[in-house]
Amino acid sequence: MLNLRSSARDTRPKASQLKLGLASYTLRKFTQEKAIAMAKRVGLDYMCFKSMHLPLSATPAELKSSAKRVADAGLDLYGAGVIYMKSTAEVDQAFEYAKNAGMTTIVGVPGHDLLTYTNEKIKTYDIKVAIHNHGPGDDLYPSPESIYVKIKDLDPRFGLCMDIGHTQRIGVDPTEAGEKYFDRLFDIHLKDVNKADADGTPVEAGRGVIDIPRFLKMLEDKKYQGVVSFEYEKDGDDPLPGLAESVGYVRGCLDALLG
Amino acid sequence: MLNLRSSARDTRPKASQLKLGLASYTLRKFTQEKAIAMAKRVGLDYMCFKSMHLPLSATPAELKSSAKRVADAGLDLYGAGVIYMKSTAEVDQAFEYAKNAGMTTIVGVPGHDLLTYTNEKIKTYDIKVAIHNHGPGDDLYPSPESIYVKIKDLDPRFGLCMDIGHTQRIGVDPTEAGEKYFDRLFDIHLKDVNKADADGTPVEAGRGVIDIPRFLKMLEDKKYQGVVSFEYEKDGDDPLPGLAESVGYVRGCLDALLG
Repeated sequence: MLNLRSSARDTRPKASQLKLGLASYTLRKFTQEKAIAMAKRVGLDYMCFKSMHLPLSATPAELKSSAKRVADAGLDLYGAGVIYMKSTAEVDQAFEYAKNAGMTTIVGVPGHDLLTYTNEKIKTYDIKVAIHNHGPGDDLYPSPESIYVKIKDLDPRFGLCMDIGHTQRIGVDPTEAGEKYFDRLFDIHLKDVNKADADGTPVEAGRGVIDIPRFLKMLEDKKYQGVVSFEYEKDGDDPLPGLAESVGYVRGCLDALLG
Repeated sequence: MLNLRSSARDTRPKASQLKLGLASYTLRKFTQEKAIAMAKRVGLDYMCFKSMHLPLSATPAELKSSAKRVADAGLDLYGAGVIYMKSTAEVDQAFEYAKNAGMTTIVGVPGHDLLTYTNEKIKTYDIKVAIHNHGPGDDLYPSPESIYVKIKDLDPRFGLCMDIGHTQRIGVDPTEAGEKYFDRLFDIHLKDVNKADADGTPVEAGRGVIDIPRFLKMLEDKKYQGVVSFEYEKDGDDPLPGLAESVGYVRGCLDALLG
């Protein structure tokens, strides 16, 4: 039993450089304080607040204090959303909100008639807008392609938050879509679904039909610089175990892919 | 947006054949009923009960009804442990207990002076005994090697339950040990530790120093037929999120390795 220590090896896989975050809609039934604590517990580094955790009507002072609370917890409040924008006033509000909270990205759904107006705001504020696809039944942006065709000739800070669950539900392969629209892929909602059609419902990452290892390999190969944010929609009253399983699944994929 | 469904692909990675289970010491502060429910929730298929979930003193009728409860939940009650055996009476009790519960494996720690006696019981009952290594400070079986040298010439149903955390803590590489003693590797306690020495404490799988992807690849390559049981020792009062993260991590590793 002597000198056993000498046979120990340090062969942990190369750490992924992907940024992992939380789309806080996952924790929609919990307070901001608890959402921060749960994101920390599962080891995420980035936060994208949904409005129940940071109201769009918050004052600049409230936005700054919330941003400080997130930063003090060691998280990067990079964005907010999904924010629906149906008027110029709502676009104005979203950009002031993001600016005062120090966010780099608005995950949003601007009406088709507001794209030109939103584009001007992007230039004024230097804040990215990532449009979110919501799959079958979404009249505005059902698929990644439906976003891309609308923004490809606009400011390069206008792009996509690709929701891979809704992408798979509309019958589009998330890896192929991610590769195709990579130059405008700014944010990701990472999840899994139990069927690749409109009836698909959310499940823990790895338990559904999405080929998540292949999707992550594409992001690694293309050196994706945005955040991969977990949006775990199942178990709204008790989401932490499923969120944790999903985060573990992605970490396991990345460690095995890079090992 | 027409014919999008035709571009969907079914490229989910090949499923691993590894059997994933729970070492129920993880849920030592919870009832048998809750332990079964939590194992189900994280999607495990096998159960190894620690004595707080199935007392060693249980009557044959109690053992049978507990085994039925586990089976009715869709889990395979393959074993129990860790069971410490310091007398022939305790060895006798362990084998009667395992037989009446329908278990194939006793995860146990028989005293060195009881190995020959235990070996005879293995032959009589046709139940495997997998000795558990407990790392630095364990006077009987600190390392996988310390077990192997004692049982290698005994019945082939006498083997190891390799605890990869305690293996790493004693400075032995779990993958190398698993390969070396593979012919007697019957059970595994899957965990992670934050340091590769005696001071190492348990953490979520993937957050520590053990190269779990490499360990799992070894098991896959060698077509390991035993169970990989999760023993998550951190957060005793609230273990479900860390257990779920650990299970997710291993599933992610396996999907990426086999993809």
